[in-house]
Amino acid sequence: MGRDHLGDDAAFLPSSSDDWAISVDQQIEGAHYPSELDPRAAGRRLVAVCLSDLAACGAQPVYATLTVALPAHFPARRLLEGVLDGCDRHGVTLAGGDTASTRGPAVSTLTVFGRRPGGGHWLRRSAARPGDTLWLGGTVGESALGRALLAAGATASGRRVHLPAGLAGSGRLERLGKRAVRRHLLPTPQFELGRALGRRRRVAALDVSDGLALDLHRLCAASGVGAQVEAADLPEPEGLSAWAERLGQDHQNWMLGGGEDYVLLFTLPPSSRRPTPDCRRIGAITTSEEVKLLTSTGARALEPIGWDHLAEPGG
Amino acid sequence: MGRDHLGDDAAFLPSSSDDWAISVDQQIEGAHYPSELDPRAAGRRLVAVCLSDLAACGAQPVYATLTVALPAHFPARRLLEGVLDGCDRHGVTLAGGDTASTRGPAVSTLTVFGRRPGGGHWLRRSAARPGDTLWLGGTVGESALGRALLAAGATASGRRVHLPAGLAGSGRLERLGKRAVRRHLLPTPQFELGRALGRRRRVAALDVSDGLALDLHRLCAASGVGAQVEAADLPEPEGLSAWAERLGQDHQNWMLGGGEDYVLLFTLPPSSRRPTPDCRRIGAITTSEEVKLLTSTGARALEPIGWDHLAEPGG
Repeated sequence: MGRDHLGDDAAFLPSSSDDWAISVDQQIEGAHYPSELDPRAAGRRLVAVCLSDLAACGAQPVYATLTVALPAHFPARRLLEGVLDGCDRHGVTLAGGDTASTRGPAVSTLTVFGRRPGGGHWLRRSAARPGDTLWLGGTVGESALGRALLAAGATASGRRVHLPAGLAGSGRLERLGKRAVRRHLLPTPQFELGRALGRRRRVAALDVSDGLALDLHRLCAASGVGAQVEAADLPEPEGLSAWAERLGQDHQNWMLGGGEDYVLLFTLPPSSRRPTPDCRRIGAITTSEEVKLLTSTGARALEPIGWDHLAEPGG
Repeated sequence: MGRDHLGDDAAFLPSSSDDWAISVDQQIEGAHYPSELDPRAAGRRLVAVCLSDLAACGAQPVYATLTVALPAHFPARRLLEGVLDGCDRHGVTLAGGDTASTRGPAVSTLTVFGRRPGGGHWLRRSAARPGDTLWLGGTVGESALGRALLAAGATASGRRVHLPAGLAGSGRLERLGKRAVRRHLLPTPQFELGRALGRRRRVAALDVSDGLALDLHRLCAASGVGAQVEAADLPEPEGLSAWAERLGQDHQNWMLGGGEDYVLLFTLPPSSRRPTPDCRRIGAITTSEEVKLLTSTGARALEPIGWDHLAEPGG
């Protein structure tokens, strides 16, 4: 981790003939993460979430810049430590930044820069074609469980998660609940998968940030295609339905609309092989421009739901 | 102006072998600009202020990304129009962005990307050497006058400025006051000067953002040198002292600590010629590591004052 680019009015990237991808993300205290969250964890999460966009493009992350607007008495240093820690973890150099005071909640903005690996190409949302297979890079719904547990009083300190007395229970389920909280707070950008996909000949991809259903609609809209998803093939995290039952929630809603799992959703040309062992084929791309969910009782339209929809009353 | 890079998880810069400089700036409603300001003007100002950092590096601006955290009912569209207008004005492509809601004041963050012009080199703060001459790219203090007039009730709509009844007066002074408000709201990044300096063999430079005195201290600290400034040689905007007297302020404080004039402060090797007609030589670089102001009554230490200091009671 170096900060040798700081000090001048701008940061100067060393000479290179790389192709660059840029992504930007902001996190607002109390909206994107609970106000009670340790600013160090918030900083690490900001880096992970922002880098996931680069992973979804097949990029190799290299630089970041940070701006923070912070209220009085905010522990700015812990937030910065978290950002630096997150950058370190992914080999990213923090190349510049700016700090200012605000009367409102903390707003942190990270811009990340990634280079295109040699021999790879950029992954875009618009490359899906009818007949392609549809895949997920990992399970979905687990981050929504973590968010629900935090809302129900779970707390985290570093890697340690504490569940409130009413929710602590049998060893196995408790362990799975704590894992969900950790995944929600610190998702893992799928860089290895993104780079592997970038070496394939035609792949459409994005990361599941707002919700599988909503993000799939975006992929289909960008490609001018439809999709059908096999409900039975959706990769379900262990313990998800048991936790949903305990919390009076619908685990399928979490999987389809929970979002923030930051796994890649992607398409491959017909009869392509599985890119990495964690990937699951969940359906296919169609010509119809409709997005459908196939269940044991038939087909229905898959509405573009995301976690902000689920948060609304009755959602 | 194009937005053809939007739509994927990241923006992809077209292949090139350019060297890149990156700078980032944020503006907070009520802190960096009055809450009453038209968001369109705020957007244009954000672009100008942020691009000034690239000008100070000798860069040619190319891309920008924008994130905004906005309270409910904020006219987001007008802000975006202002940013797009500002980008247009300087040939910059808005390559990506993000919008979120906040309970607090509006926070807008712009990241700008500039390339190094062929034959030029980057300007750094650390290149000053004893014996160098010290220069300003234009007048200082005018932005502080504009800020004071806005605080006293001046309003602006597009290029039209209205002074409150108590301050409207003789034609000439009124015209100069309105010009100061316009300069405060929409400073001009000195790109032409920055590029001209980038073709010289050794130049230290930054832009006067926080205050001439404070920014000069930064340049001296980065270069490990001192400086002496001839008070009589400071380029004073027309009408500044008359306005300061009317408003009960010290015009020299505005010039030395007012900031936000966004002219370049730079050094040249001894006996270098004036880079552009607007540049004024204001002093010299010394070995002493002290920063001094030479006046008709002698020499005194030039304290590192900036506009945030002046804003404090008694400042």
